[in-house]
Amino acid sequence: MGKKRKNLIESIAGKQLHVLAQQLYDLTLPEALTANNRLERYICQSDGLKLLYATQRVTDEVLDTLQELSAECQLVSQFQEMRRGGIMNCISGFESENRQVLHTACRDLFSDTPAEPEATAQARRELAKLALFLEGIDTGQICNAEGKKFSTMIHVGIGGSDLGPRSIYEALIPYGQKGRQVFFISNVDPDDASAVLAQVDLSTTLVNIVSKSGTTLETLTNETIVRKALQDANLDPRRHCIAVTGEGSPIDNPEEYLCSFYMYDYIGGRYSATSMVGVVMLGFFLGYKKVVEFLQGAAEMDLTAENPILRENLPLLLAMLGIWNHNFLGSPTVAVLPYSQALHRFPAHLQQCDMESNGKSVDRTGQPVTYKTGPIIWGEPGTNGQHAFYQLLHQGMEIVPVEFIGCITSQRGEDVEVAGSTSQQKLLANLLAQSLALAVGQTSDNPNKCFPGNRPSTLLLIDRLTPQTMGALLALYEAKIVFQGFAWNINSFDQEGVQLGKVLATRFLDCLSGRDKREDSIQRKFLQVALKTP
Amino acid sequence: MGKKRKNLIESIAGKQLHVLAQQLYDLTLPEALTANNRLERYICQSDGLKLLYATQRVTDEVLDTLQELSAECQLVSQFQEMRRGGIMNCISGFESENRQVLHTACRDLFSDTPAEPEATAQARRELAKLALFLEGIDTGQICNAEGKKFSTMIHVGIGGSDLGPRSIYEALIPYGQKGRQVFFISNVDPDDASAVLAQVDLSTTLVNIVSKSGTTLETLTNETIVRKALQDANLDPRRHCIAVTGEGSPIDNPEEYLCSFYMYDYIGGRYSATSMVGVVMLGFFLGYKKVVEFLQGAAEMDLTAENPILRENLPLLLAMLGIWNHNFLGSPTVAVLPYSQALHRFPAHLQQCDMESNGKSVDRTGQPVTYKTGPIIWGEPGTNGQHAFYQLLHQGMEIVPVEFIGCITSQRGEDVEVAGSTSQQKLLANLLAQSLALAVGQTSDNPNKCFPGNRPSTLLLIDRLTPQTMGALLALYEAKIVFQGFAWNINSFDQEGVQLGKVLATRFLDCLSGRDKREDSIQRKFLQVALKTP
Repeated sequence: MGKKRKNLIESIAGKQLHVLAQQLYDLTLPEALTANNRLERYICQSDGLKLLYATQRVTDEVLDTLQELSAECQLVSQFQEMRRGGIMNCISGFESENRQVLHTACRDLFSDTPAEPEATAQARRELAKLALFLEGIDTGQICNAEGKKFSTMIHVGIGGSDLGPRSIYEALIPYGQKGRQVFFISNVDPDDASAVLAQVDLSTTLVNIVSKSGTTLETLTNETIVRKALQDANLDPRRHCIAVTGEGSPIDNPEEYLCSFYMYDYIGGRYSATSMVGVVMLGFFLGYKKVVEFLQGAAEMDLTAENPILRENLPLLLAMLGIWNHNFLGSPTVAVLPYSQALHRFPAHLQQCDMESNGKSVDRTGQPVTYKTGPIIWGEPGTNGQHAFYQLLHQGMEIVPVEFIGCITSQRGEDVEVAGSTSQQKLLANLLAQSLALAVGQTSDNPNKCFPGNRPSTLLLIDRLTPQTMGALLALYEAKIVFQGFAWNINSFDQEGVQLGKVLATRFLDCLSGRDKREDSIQRKFLQVALKTP
Repeated sequence: MGKKRKNLIESIAGKQLHVLAQQLYDLTLPEALTANNRLERYICQSDGLKLLYATQRVTDEVLDTLQELSAECQLVSQFQEMRRGGIMNCISGFESENRQVLHTACRDLFSDTPAEPEATAQARRELAKLALFLEGIDTGQICNAEGKKFSTMIHVGIGGSDLGPRSIYEALIPYGQKGRQVFFISNVDPDDASAVLAQVDLSTTLVNIVSKSGTTLETLTNETIVRKALQDANLDPRRHCIAVTGEGSPIDNPEEYLCSFYMYDYIGGRYSATSMVGVVMLGFFLGYKKVVEFLQGAAEMDLTAENPILRENLPLLLAMLGIWNHNFLGSPTVAVLPYSQALHRFPAHLQQCDMESNGKSVDRTGQPVTYKTGPIIWGEPGTNGQHAFYQLLHQGMEIVPVEFIGCITSQRGEDVEVAGSTSQQKLLANLLAQSLALAVGQTSDNPNKCFPGNRPSTLLLIDRLTPQTMGALLALYEAKIVFQGFAWNINSFDQEGVQLGKVLATRFLDCLSGRDKREDSIQRKFLQVALKTP
């Protein structure tokens, strides 16, 4: 706390990078991609992932300066401090959450000397409870009132308690246990819950209520809807509902829930997918063994992130390439484009994790920042996107750095050869072609067929998307986001920006319910205008 | 063709808007939202939709100047020309598609004097074929080899043949006919088709192959996969497959398909949701009557778009507010945030329709443009987004103009009261609160709890999302995109930017299949690096 930490603008390396940005490597020149063994040298791989970055506008000099930047800003040592329990969630000199940041401790299970033993011990306790619980479900010891086994789970949560777990579930569907299925309810829109309840047989359904505070408006509302549906079906909610929450929260209540799994204050919602928030649902679906593989993938990436050498540290490298494009080349957004249908919701999770972490405008001493912080993150899977928004990526007036993600092998292994190639080959060919096309561009006598090129991208390749590589992929992005936040010297772990909307929503509800009777409030006037029938 | 058309920068109004942008209306001042009856006056409604825009940084003077801009650039008369069959898809002086743009003709069915009678006659013919086909399915005249009725459809398409139809299907699920269901396959990723095929009973499934050219790589590949699955299940593909395609295309073939429905060159893929591309699937699911309601909603909005008065022309107003934020206030992106779970994929459709249309950098005479064209469009449903990326919207360093969409009434009508309010009330309260919070902000002694405010948004309210209002919503956005393209003087109807990637993908496939044996091509080298196992 109160430490003076350098941000990227104050650093000597940052000033050099501004100079280097004036004389950018031209990817459109002949041999630009192959000169100096660029393709082979601009690769970083670890933990089953491989990053190709020859199609970025970087040179050895830029990379060396990014290395210096990360050293000056002490990015890796701050990451180490975080993993070891440092109070990284704070704004010094002002009231703030003042918490440790220990999502990494949830998966630090594979070493005899975990970085923060106390938090890892808590994670182990919860995992042991989970293993027992899952065994009970498998054997049928835990069952419904008629003795039937549970086959379905409804996961009720929102934000960090929804997007991370859901995107990982979607990514790993082919690894699910036979007969098990999961549904998700998140939105306070009553149609969301209705649509799910119309599809499930509640008698064999577990309902997993996920809220750290136990007070999240949307989640409690949806819980009430689901409990009512259980009662309407003559089922006892206490036999069907479980909770993932903070110890002692309003929903940590054995009278109302079959059991509770705990998460802790030192884990932010958007970083909680490897805590009980994600792992209870994933355990039910995948089985305990595969969840441990998932955690192991994440744990290995956390260790990789402690390597001080930029070119060997995958998350640090991805973070610094992002800083280069955002702060020095001026691109306001980043597109994350997975060439994998299984990862179709992963960009939405990253959008949350990144933008809620780094969409900030004061630094860790409460001073307004004078440089761009977190970019806008967006994306959809390829090849679909190619037929949608790629027009703008290639020929639009806004340069969008792209983070492609691809898998060498498909998950399900079912494929056919059409016109001399398999679908998986077509998918890969398109992935590589897009990265190349963005970089090299094309000239033409027809101005409408010109492609300027020099549009940067990285290619992240995974041999096959498995629980383990999914864990590594998740931890890669979590660490990338954390490194960038350190470089901007902001607190990536709070979310004060969501408070005002909550306060005003309550005022609108008071107005709607008649609790607030003032005729002249802005809420009243706004509501009158909004609700007047056309 | 060859007409000299003014763009927004050349206009007198454009120059005035630059001056007005230096003295912006301050939404954070006390009474800023209520002064001068602002809330009541800054409303535009038509066709079941209502736009509230008091939370934009506009004044009467700005609006009047935007009105002048639209007059100088002849936006409405160009829209009229488009609807009447003008060749709007062209770049004068260069080879280009040189086509009419007549997606509006597909729904111009409710007037005795359609704007372009020939195209509307073609649309009527296809609709009549569809009505007959749907009747055959309903009665069981069209059935599988065993005489069983069809209950399921797999819609196979990509890009414009996928995102629009799919997002509308998702929006209208509660209106589906009992027992009918639809699945979608789009991605060339083989896992996409596998996942769908694992869920359906093919014996009662119709397969709808949608490709204008009949040559789309992804769609033909997925068709092959599905046909193989039909054969493996001892089903005759000719009894199960139908095609939506151009007349005379390779898949317009009665030997191989139960029947073909036609679309025409004058309809671009991303604007094709109201053509047979969307309507065959929607007709199967919703029934013919509801599809006509959907088309009627769109037709009415098309007429609204011909009103030259900015404040009464909903699509024009939305377009000009977007231009104001993008070109004069400098925001590179737009977030579309529906407070409706049913609209969860609508932002993805708009992302396609908008960015493929307006992500351009040459004008309609082939000259490079010197101003920003189409923005980056992104978004996810609220309230979910509030727990995800809204932090950046409120406190980030990048200002994101927001287009909120909300419904007064839920679709399914199932709701409960929790803590004194229904879910639908909570949803609405949050929607209004976000718009207000972004506009007015908040001061605080704690810099981390400060909200700068002055972040612009519009609130588009729908009484209830029905086939008809969904049609109006779709056409609203189509027209908005077209108006903006006219203002930028670009061709919003081609997509040359997707070609280079296609060409390079073919080269990669030639390399993978061994057809291209050169050892020194960039493709070969790229593949070697990418596929080398870690």
